[in-house]
Amino acid sequence: MPLTLSDLGKAVLDTHYAVRGPIVARAQELERAGRKVIYCNIGNPQALGQKPLSYVRQTLALTEWPELIAAAPEAFPPDILARAKAILSESKYGLGAYSDSKGLKFIREAIAEFIHERDSDKTLEVNADPEHIFLTDGASKGVQAALRLLIASDHDGIMIPTPQYPLYSATITLYGGVQVGYHLDEASGWSLSRRMLDEAYLSARGAGVKVKAICVINPGNPTGSVLSRDNIAMVIDFAKEHGLSILADEVYQENIYGKNDRFVSFARILAELGQKEVSLFSFHSCSKGYLGECGQRGGYMEVRNLPAEILAQITKLQSISLCANLPGQILVYLMVRPPRLGEASFDLFQREKAAVLDGLKRRAIMLAEGLNSIPGYSCQPITGAMYAFPTIVIPEGRTDEEYCLALLERTGICVVSGSGFGQVKGTAHFRTTILPPIDQIEEVVRKIREFHLSWK
Amino acid sequence: MPLTLSDLGKAVLDTHYAVRGPIVARAQELERAGRKVIYCNIGNPQALGQKPLSYVRQTLALTEWPELIAAAPEAFPPDILARAKAILSESKYGLGAYSDSKGLKFIREAIAEFIHERDSDKTLEVNADPEHIFLTDGASKGVQAALRLLIASDHDGIMIPTPQYPLYSATITLYGGVQVGYHLDEASGWSLSRRMLDEAYLSARGAGVKVKAICVINPGNPTGSVLSRDNIAMVIDFAKEHGLSILADEVYQENIYGKNDRFVSFARILAELGQKEVSLFSFHSCSKGYLGECGQRGGYMEVRNLPAEILAQITKLQSISLCANLPGQILVYLMVRPPRLGEASFDLFQREKAAVLDGLKRRAIMLAEGLNSIPGYSCQPITGAMYAFPTIVIPEGRTDEEYCLALLERTGICVVSGSGFGQVKGTAHFRTTILPPIDQIEEVVRKIREFHLSWK
Repeated sequence: MPLTLSDLGKAVLDTHYAVRGPIVARAQELERAGRKVIYCNIGNPQALGQKPLSYVRQTLALTEWPELIAAAPEAFPPDILARAKAILSESKYGLGAYSDSKGLKFIREAIAEFIHERDSDKTLEVNADPEHIFLTDGASKGVQAALRLLIASDHDGIMIPTPQYPLYSATITLYGGVQVGYHLDEASGWSLSRRMLDEAYLSARGAGVKVKAICVINPGNPTGSVLSRDNIAMVIDFAKEHGLSILADEVYQENIYGKNDRFVSFARILAELGQKEVSLFSFHSCSKGYLGECGQRGGYMEVRNLPAEILAQITKLQSISLCANLPGQILVYLMVRPPRLGEASFDLFQREKAAVLDGLKRRAIMLAEGLNSIPGYSCQPITGAMYAFPTIVIPEGRTDEEYCLALLERTGICVVSGSGFGQVKGTAHFRTTILPPIDQIEEVVRKIREFHLSWK
Repeated sequence: MPLTLSDLGKAVLDTHYAVRGPIVARAQELERAGRKVIYCNIGNPQALGQKPLSYVRQTLALTEWPELIAAAPEAFPPDILARAKAILSESKYGLGAYSDSKGLKFIREAIAEFIHERDSDKTLEVNADPEHIFLTDGASKGVQAALRLLIASDHDGIMIPTPQYPLYSATITLYGGVQVGYHLDEASGWSLSRRMLDEAYLSARGAGVKVKAICVINPGNPTGSVLSRDNIAMVIDFAKEHGLSILADEVYQENIYGKNDRFVSFARILAELGQKEVSLFSFHSCSKGYLGECGQRGGYMEVRNLPAEILAQITKLQSISLCANLPGQILVYLMVRPPRLGEASFDLFQREKAAVLDGLKRRAIMLAEGLNSIPGYSCQPITGAMYAFPTIVIPEGRTDEEYCLALLERTGICVVSGSGFGQVKGTAHFRTTILPPIDQIEEVVRKIREFHLSWK
């Protein structure tokens, strides 16, 4: 007998991943049938016209085929040629050999410097240790590594925001753990409150769940909100009180649009508080920010307050699949070491970076305003990340899945229903990216409005 | 309290991965202290001097930075320029966007054609379906995907060869399954017998284990042996009889050195037998063969005799980490579509490929002969893959771990002890790659001999 569903485990069968679920499958069917589809389901900037940054791709081209350095030097700025030579020499064997399980050491050193520079100021030095850094195939693989470590039994719970990014719910289910959802307060810009955390924690404990960790996504996915310093300190206090580890998903740290917002890392606040009791796993990625290099799967995990024997366990688990892909590792290096003032590539880098970030900011504002102008829609300001997660009023008895599917059929716009991310019972939402080109955003809003006013 | 070992699950703690274990850690320490180390612990050809093939790296450079096609066309052969343009056009968004969870469709189509061409002859057409192919970050991730699907409870057993590649033992432990080892017969060139399979199966059943699948590594790692057509048909019969799935690790399919050996795929024999009852997962990789592109993490899994609902489950699990890295996907495409007769790159491709494969063959013969000339050593002919796994006679009361560690300390040669792969009780082995450059192989053998004759 060939394998059947009854041979599979409950954990596999129960796992759901909405961002690429049935709505997306239907969108692909429509596209194959000749319909135009606007994919707003996934933060995939280059699929919606964002250009890669020149310095990144020039360096990757040279490291893929080092003979180009001699064969076509005139095609590259001098700093890029020098950079490629340095990378090839530091990496020893180029892109074709397995690296250490943790990733190439010079890249981990560069990441540690990047964190130090990002998080230190006159009042405080925040140091990072290259031995506490692990290169991963995108941030998703880092999150999975941390959850693998933490979920030891089917009573182990992981706190995740509601709404959340489905990587978390899917992985917790797959690894046999318990999702412990804590609500974000939509009315106050998706803010995080101690009361909500306590409620979720106590209710899980009451149900016999051993809560092991809390995941925080900052800037928020799908909410688009940015946490304040005090909010982060509150989470750290909460974790300390209950002996939890923190998973800080900080992949949107460059994507801040609010005038009064800035990104503050969990590492920084941990250092400010002198907190040595709370273990931290933080994640970064080349897929978001201004690079948007989703396809190349570069990312890293930095950990704090973990004893050497736990680091050894992480290294052991990473070693089973040998190492993160080398082009992705190089990409992480380029992300944390962009061209510097005085280098030939600096001006172009600045212009390209600003164009991407300004474009995202304009679209964030435009989309939130546009959605808010639709009767029955309410969208919090998009102050960070790449998404809007509006509340929608829909006819009684209908679901947001039905709404999103109908929207797709009618308009070709592909968004993901709120149920895939989690939401307060009785409410309806969807997540859309802010990524369509600026001239398409107006069209998207217009089509959504027309659809919404007529759908029953 | 920071996380401690007591917070971790038994599965994580029990997992071992010898290829990058304590011996390798010690080798790295010695190297940092200035000692010369020859790494024979891992099949990492480019770290031991193997050059990447030109057509591969040229195409990857162009797809990383497409402006090169216009900026430096004279640096590339015309067929490579055309190929890069075609890849960029087929992939739609280049390397920077997430692809479908299964991988880019044109690449899956090319893989299906490759399998058809590899496995068909005048007597039989072997077709492959692009929808049954999944691109993965190296073959390891494919194997893990299949095992994830199959291990549904802690009574589920997976048959693996003894000796095996530790990816299998580590992943089965991590996923909470049971390893069911079946012995290969060293004396007859590590051959596989029905009797050994039956013994292992019955003994597992007797212990209450539900056997779900059998893994076969062909050509063998660490054994270096190549399975015959009849051996493969026997495994398929065995799997049919007991309702098992087959995992066929075929990453060394291009690495065949024996005069009378050739690679036969499980897909081919499944088709020959007209067998539709046995589910097959087969794995291939860009890390081995003549490419040796370990760092770029390209691979694929092809499945047969699986119903649509199981395919959907695999796609769902793959989608949680979005997609395999795109440079690795392109590399798989280049592996299955090398330059063809009449294209400008063909001659150089042929020369480079032959140089790699001839070099490996010479080293396989030299190393086996060299090891067999050491008193107390017995090494089966290395007819495939990249490894030797000699039996060694060591003083009573000593272990092969101690032997390998002492060999490292004394000579700088880093090999992995047989205990990491599994072996008949009371025997001692180690695994060494055949990868050191040809002039170093003699030195390696000489040093091993001197060490062996003096170690007590």
